[in-house]
Amino acid sequence: MITLASDFGAVYPAAMKGVLLSHTDADLVDIAHDLPRQDPRAAAFWLQFALSEFPPAVHLIVVDPGVGTDRRAIVVRSGEHAFVGPDNGVLLPPARVVNEKPIEAFEITDVTADSMTFHGRDVFAPMAALVHEYGVGDLAEIECLKPIDDPIGITFPTPTLSGDGTEIDATVLVVDDFGNVITNVPGEKLANYTDCLVNGHRVPIVDTFASVPTGEPLVTVGSHGYVECDVNHGRGDVYFAVSVGETVSFEIFDR
Amino acid sequence: MITLASDFGAVYPAAMKGVLLSHTDADLVDIAHDLPRQDPRAAAFWLQFALSEFPPAVHLIVVDPGVGTDRRAIVVRSGEHAFVGPDNGVLLPPARVVNEKPIEAFEITDVTADSMTFHGRDVFAPMAALVHEYGVGDLAEIECLKPIDDPIGITFPTPTLSGDGTEIDATVLVVDDFGNVITNVPGEKLANYTDCLVNGHRVPIVDTFASVPTGEPLVTVGSHGYVECDVNHGRGDVYFAVSVGETVSFEIFDR
Amino acid sequence: MITLASDFGAVYPAAMKGVLLSHTDADLVDIAHDLPRQDPRAAAFWLQFALSEFPPAVHLIVVDPGVGTDRRAIVVRSGEHAFVGPDNGVLLPPARVVNEKPIEAFEITDVTADSMTFHGRDVFAPMAALVHEYGVGDLAEIECLKPIDDPIGITFPTPTLSGDGTEIDATVLVVDDFGNVITNVPGEKLANYTDCLVNGHRVPIVDTFASVPTGEPLVTVGSHGYVECDVNHGRGDVYFAVSVGETVSFEIFDR
Repeated sequence: MITLASDFGAVYPAAMKGVLLSHTDADLVDIAHDLPRQDPRAAAFWLQFALSEFPPAVHLIVVDPGVGTDRRAIVVRSGEHAFVGPDNGVLLPPARVVNEKPIEAFEITDVTADSMTFHGRDVFAPMAALVHEYGVGDLAEIECLKPIDDPIGITFPTPTLSGDGTEIDATVLVVDDFGNVITNVPGEKLANYTDCLVNGHRVPIVDTFASVPTGEPLVTVGSHGYVECDVNHGRGDVYFAVSVGETVSFEIFDR
Repeated sequence: MITLASDFGAVYPAAMKGVLLSHTDADLVDIAHDLPRQDPRAAAFWLQFALSEFPPAVHLIVVDPGVGTDRRAIVVRSGEHAFVGPDNGVLLPPARVVNEKPIEAFEITDVTADSMTFHGRDVFAPMAALVHEYGVGDLAEIECLKPIDDPIGITFPTPTLSGDGTEIDATVLVVDDFGNVITNVPGEKLANYTDCLVNGHRVPIVDTFASVPTGEPLVTVGSHGYVECDVNHGRGDVYFAVSVGETVSFEIFDR
Repeated sequence: MITLASDFGAVYPAAMKGVLLSHTDADLVDIAHDLPRQDPRAAAFWLQFALSEFPPAVHLIVVDPGVGTDRRAIVVRSGEHAFVGPDNGVLLPPARVVNEKPIEAFEITDVTADSMTFHGRDVFAPMAALVHEYGVGDLAEIECLKPIDDPIGITFPTPTLSGDGTEIDATVLVVDDFGNVITNVPGEKLANYTDCLVNGHRVPIVDTFASVPTGEPLVTVGSHGYVECDVNHGRGDVYFAVSVGETVSFEIFDR
């Protein structure tokens, strides 16, 4: 099985499928092709969510703002999974979530200068097919793969909680297209509470956006399982004046 | 074969695929993941259209505004097809269209309180895989399935026609995102006519939106085969002042 | 393998999948279902790009503004590939790109008047399944296929270059949804140059839109490999006042 994920939108993923299917008869599984554009960090967040339950597979992941620069092309092995894509960090969070063993990384050494703009088709798809045909266990036998120990990483911080769990120092992991502020606080930390202070603003903890009037702020747990700071029909990032990587302090309580 | 349909948009469907593929090597077929959001009735309309020609399969359908409430999780058998999803009516119209035999319904009894927000991944996908592995003929052998005789239904009304077919009392089935008003009148009822009165408004019957000027109303047959009341570059629901479930009267004639 | 491409958006492609899977157990591969709507020429451009690397397959392509008129329904053979769809030219550019041999074309002669609006489901999908089951080599044995020698063609012109390559008379192949003007000039023709005159306007040649201020024009090479005339956060077709089929003159030079 080979999974495909990218920020390509329409048509371009099909060109990668054509290459894959010329080299292998693996089953292809589309993950998403509208990942946050040119944003490896946000893409990595969504991919660690989307891929966490997959059985062993080769995962072709192309969110690659550095294509055409000297960023490396890599393959990452994690247990029986392999991840193929650019060395910008996007591969590591999903690689770590599918398996607990340490990951191994390899540089693809035969990238030619011919392919300047579409490494998804010209570099990563052929390599994904090759890895699938060799088998993930035999990566070391692929001649153009050189072990490296310094793949670029993206890590998501964990929140700091007070002893009783009512004060939380959180970090913004992602702001989505709608301005929703997704933090690193697992949703279960808010169970049984009705309200909170978010950076000093009093905000209700609710199940749905519609629980507050249009334009009003809310805190809720998104379907990804993390606590979000949002505004009903508005932008949470503007209301709370926070952006990716910044800290958010929560004080949670019962009305 | 397992088909997947939802209102999840991007990324979330992939989490369901991961679960399915960990439990089965069934072929997966995407139906659509941008079904009308939180709208089981409109989703059911589109699914009875989309699934009508499928060969026997397990159909995983998640349009589920009631997730986290006490709405039941169910499996519906219709001939050699099985439908897995929430008990809000969305499963029944497609289940009835794929087979003429009476349907049978089962409640999934082992839904734990752990899974509050993403039953697509945590409840329905594992059950779809299980049903696929047992085979649709052996549903009764799955321990956590309990027969029920009261699954929630969604039925679409049929129109009333005068003897010569020129007066039709129709019902609005769906208003799509563009404001197009889709009625329950099969398109062939308008064949050979050029004009009609829609709730008293005189409107031409045309093949394409572009047959009338921008902002003008029209009646046409959509690709789903039903009669629509639309406005070229405008909203039919506003122009005709109708909404889902309301009645529309047609008088059709030749210019 | 059967690939599917259309301008149908959501849900309608699933109806074609249902028909295909009732007749064959071929692997289905989605190419794109948001091809330029009702625009066979632009769709053909994208499909010759997307399908160029595919292994032998049956390609079901439905961009069909003439459905319901007397346009023919056809099958085109190109080497071991077959293309099934309307006779409006959309099949020929991708058919020519997958194989160098001359193409052969056949009319589907048993199209009944019953199917007026959805030939994708009612005519082309059953034929694609039939072609897959017979095998592309045995098209002549399918009774309802009649050889024709005049399938409608779409051809894309090639640019005219001066001896030193610095003056190019190009043609606009496609204007995309964003107003980007895609010409027929292969990207490598601009390598090593920094600036150009486009119809007399001086414009920088850059790698990314963000290299110029908002509202400013630029020339770049798109991921499809062709030279584009664009405006950062604006419409190239408006700025350069050109549309599909028109000529654009480039003079390229180094700053």
